[in-house]
Amino acid sequence: MIERMIEMKVLAIDTSNHPMSVALVEDDQLLATTTLNMVRNHSIYLMPTIDRLFKLVKWAPTDIDRVVVAQGPGSYTGIRIAATTAKTLADTIDVDLVGVSSLAVIARNVLPTSKQVIVPFFDARRGNVFAGAYQWEEGKLTNQIEDQHLAMTTLLDQLAKIERPVILVGHMTKRISDQLEKLPENVTLAPRTYGIPSTYQLALAGEGLSAVKEIDPFVPHYLRITEAEANWQKLHPGETRKNYVREV
Amino acid sequence: MIERMIEMKVLAIDTSNHPMSVALVEDDQLLATTTLNMVRNHSIYLMPTIDRLFKLVKWAPTDIDRVVVAQGPGSYTGIRIAATTAKTLADTIDVDLVGVSSLAVIARNVLPTSKQVIVPFFDARRGNVFAGAYQWEEGKLTNQIEDQHLAMTTLLDQLAKIERPVILVGHMTKRISDQLEKLPENVTLAPRTYGIPSTYQLALAGEGLSAVKEIDPFVPHYLRITEAEANWQKLHPGETRKNYVREV
Repeated sequence: MIERMIEMKVLAIDTSNHPMSVALVEDDQLLATTTLNMVRNHSIYLMPTIDRLFKLVKWAPTDIDRVVVAQGPGSYTGIRIAATTAKTLADTIDVDLVGVSSLAVIARNVLPTSKQVIVPFFDARRGNVFAGAYQWEEGKLTNQIEDQHLAMTTLLDQLAKIERPVILVGHMTKRISDQLEKLPENVTLAPRTYGIPSTYQLALAGEGLSAVKEIDPFVPHYLRITEAEANWQKLHPGETRKNYVREV
Repeated sequence: MIERMIEMKVLAIDTSNHPMSVALVEDDQLLATTTLNMVRNHSIYLMPTIDRLFKLVKWAPTDIDRVVVAQGPGSYTGIRIAATTAKTLADTIDVDLVGVSSLAVIARNVLPTSKQVIVPFFDARRGNVFAGAYQWEEGKLTNQIEDQHLAMTTLLDQLAKIERPVILVGHMTKRISDQLEKLPENVTLAPRTYGIPSTYQLALAGEGLSAVKEIDPFVPHYLRITEAEANWQKLHPGETRKNYVREV
């Protein structure tokens, strides 16, 4: 029953979707966290929220050992705001930067005692979702199916083939649910109130991972091309771009 | 997949134990929440935190429909601070007051898709805990065994007799775990990182309950007598007090 101790002060940031969440975590202890979930621009609220939490906990930014950020998938703007803020902070105060899947953060709302296959998802519009499959194994969350961008109907077809209980965790919008007849028998849907990310859990996930070697090349995990990129490809057929956003 | 809608603006407060948490929730949507978990006095941080969340969400206190408070059990001082603040606010702005078990709040960290018996617990010192047993039934959390104050060893003996999987959720301190040989086979322990209360879930719980008829007689659920009361009883043998705290 003794839990692992890591001596580490962490700032965790998630603005992948509608909720904006920040946490300060020391070792395995939450010190302070704020989540805002209003229809407003995360870019306005993120730095003041971080600043306020630092003041409450009486930490200077230079006290932290690493910045852990939800790296996507999610809203383009959202994951860019989080990644840019995290990179800037980590670079400025010269500390480690760690990226964690935004879907894995949601998966962690399901307790480690669960034996279900955990499938976190975000609405990606046009009947599509971002989703991955995770599983708790001896207290460690392991990725079973990589995060991807696919039609909700395709996802459910795939999940129906898994001969094990599956739990879907996310925000089932009317837009998605209208397309569904019903869920496969082995799949249950968690209430959407459990689809809010916990940056406490994000920090804990990030404590166990290696930091990026270089901060500069760190980019969000978009998992699909942007509209701008799709338009660019139409105008430049045959040319491929490995990472449109970095090049532009 | 359509979830219930209640038209309601809620302020939720939990200072039952070490974490201090506040949330503003509208219908089933979280708008803003802050949790502080530092070793400091909740009384200093509670009102400024509430005030700040109101400002962020652009609500005036008079906009809310009800105050939902974690009523105990928990630390004496903690549950008094929450109850007093909630009563004062509800009375001043003339809105509904709802009390929810502080243990039920923790139980809600386990998803409604779980079929386990959920046993939230708090350390009550001297080898004792506060604990209750809960169960999700068709999306509703029902109380199976009333919240009580008992020895951890007694609790585990009782849980061993339940012929079903049980999940313990709380903060297993070294003080408690040192007394334990091992958990009964049907009992698993959630990591303590899942023992932080969610005032979002507290608000949702409180939306479905009836408000108290009168605010004045609302008192915390202590579930044990205070040391002061025990001393008083020693000095006044034979006299009984139904509610020591209210009388004093």
